Amino acid sequence: MTETPQTLPAFRAVLAVLPVADANAIKAAEARNGVLTKPPGALGQLEQVAIWLAGWHGTAKPRIDRSQIAIFAGNHGVVAQGVSAFPAEVTVQMVANFRMGGAAINQLAHCFGATMVVQELDLNRPTGDFTQTEAMSEADLLTALQCGWNAVDPRADILVPGEMGIGNTTSAAAIACALFGGAPADWVGRGTGVDDAGLARKSAAVAAGLKLHLNRDPLEVLRCLGGREIAAMAGAMLSARAKRIPVILDGFIACSAAAVLHTTNPAALDHCIAGHVSAESGHQRLLDTLGKPPLLNLGLRLGEGSGAALALGIIKAAAACHSGMASFAEAGVAEG
Amino acid sequence: MTETPQTLPAFRAVLAVLPVADANAIKAAEARNGVLTKPPGALGQLEQVAIWLAGWHGTAKPRIDRSQIAIFAGNHGVVAQGVSAFPAEVTVQMVANFRMGGAAINQLAHCFGATMVVQELDLNRPTGDFTQTEAMSEADLLTALQCGWNAVDPRADILVPGEMGIGNTTSAAAIACALFGGAPADWVGRGTGVDDAGLARKSAAVAAGLKLHLNRDPLEVLRCLGGREIAAMAGAMLSARAKRIPVILDGFIACSAAAVLHTTNPAALDHCIAGHVSAESGHQRLLDTLGKPPLLNLGLRLGEGSGAALALGIIKAAAACHSGMASFAEAGVAEG
Repeated sequence: MTETPQTLPAFRAVLAVLPVADANAIKAAEARNGVLTKPPGALGQLEQVAIWLAGWHGTAKPRIDRSQIAIFAGNHGVVAQGVSAFPAEVTVQMVANFRMGGAAINQLAHCFGATMVVQELDLNRPTGDFTQTEAMSEADLLTALQCGWNAVDPRADILVPGEMGIGNTTSAAAIACALFGGAPADWVGRGTGVDDAGLARKSAAVAAGLKLHLNRDPLEVLRCLGGREIAAMAGAMLSARAKRIPVILDGFIACSAAAVLHTTNPAALDHCIAGHVSAESGHQRLLDTLGKPPLLNLGLRLGEGSGAALALGIIKAAAACHSGMASFAEAGVAEG
Repeated sequence: MTETPQTLPAFRAVLAVLPVADANAIKAAEARNGVLTKPPGALGQLEQVAIWLAGWHGTAKPRIDRSQIAIFAGNHGVVAQGVSAFPAEVTVQMVANFRMGGAAINQLAHCFGATMVVQELDLNRPTGDFTQTEAMSEADLLTALQCGWNAVDPRADILVPGEMGIGNTTSAAAIACALFGGAPADWVGRGTGVDDAGLARKSAAVAAGLKLHLNRDPLEVLRCLGGREIAAMAGAMLSARAKRIPVILDGFIACSAAAVLHTTNPAALDHCIAGHVSAESGHQRLLDTLGKPPLLNLGLRLGEGSGAALALGIIKAAAACHSGMASFAEAGVAEG
């Protein structure tokens, strides 16, 4: 099940038949949760997070000791449409910043004890401008999916897929609009900070892309409208699932990758939790559509996996409480 | 300024004239925030948290390396009114659990690298039942305030005051109702899990307490309706302020202690941030009244400082991003 798919049909085959959470571990974790030294339900959402982790780790006492952040970077032909507040050169500059340890995600990785890998995908060869042509060839899509698949550490106990790619909120909006309908304006947002004119150009670009690319097969949507880093995140999420590694979803762009999996197989995101809802306007709508309530709502809109990395702290704490607390019997505390 | 006040008038004097945040450090932190390698505002609330920390730490680059959790435990005469789902013995049993490392707060302290102190206040001598008599004498109140004051490590860079005390949501509701008005039912909640009849008994107890104790001076409200652990938390919050140590507020009970300071001096909570909003029904109302929007909303209702300790992870991350990130110039990234 964790063998590497080498072709697009192989990726489709993996996505069609997915491993499920361990029902016995979930039952055992629920039983454990009921006897820990706290009033029933008093740890709120932390309790459900711990039980969810238990299912994917296959144990009543899950631990987060080897968290992995995997950042994928790509460049986008659609920046020619004036959709970003920052120039395309910033993608490669930020990748250098990741490697030097100077970005927000580096500090978050250190803060929560995660390892971090950075994969750049053909930064000198942007995707095609999807208002004019297909973003990627089938070979490009396969390479990107494969990059994401291979980036996942099989020993990781949780994965944060993140991204960097000037122009990629426009690509994510196009994917969401193609998969779920609605108007382009429902899905586009200010990204790194475009003004009203920039926002109008984003809507126009999405509308043009949807008019040109009519195929609604999710992987075809990803190929025609997506970016390499978005495809790589999808590959990483699928790879994690094959390895039963739980995943924390970051913002709008990461969720557009997740949406491709979800629309192909509605169970494909059972191993994923939404780390946060970002300030990017389409993200709440996308989370609602995916049925993923966010853990955090702190107004982030940075990408890089930053909101998911922040949620990693909460998820580590949930696992620590569930697996480390004493039971009423162990502690000699009356149950009320 | 940081010597322990020896009398109640001395506590009042400290509370009347408080140190303020370092305006130069705030200005320097705001300038730094503007040149870090991210779009302006992209770290959302983390940015304001880091600037707030900078003001209290007196530096443009605040760090959280020595966080302290201080838990205070007390017993309440009002439990005679049938206001709790758990028997009063659980207070002392849970203190033993804290000392053995088996409670939720122990796991959270370990998870986020905080030190933890536990102070039990006369557990064999509950406060007076406030429906019948004053909860504390002046001497009891002073002792509890001083216990909190002395518990704060002067080298701590952030403080989480927490509590344990069967019956203390009723005491906290009585304090809030006395200080801010409204009906008892506006402030009482299910605590550790009382049923509808228990909830009605809580409202009746609060109504009886307010009828008996008409003095609305905040410290008198604390003395007549409060608990030793609530007074100790107020003392700890004030002690932290005198030492310019920022404080993370936990749930409804911790915020009732904060409310006593706030109603005496509206600037008294400038060094405090609300870690979370709990599931206890009066907490959101209390936070609104104090003007403290919460960082987290995860449905916790445990006390022990647990929600604030969870927020410690977010605040550590905010400081780490702000103080560790490269500037555009340092990283050679275009500013857009």
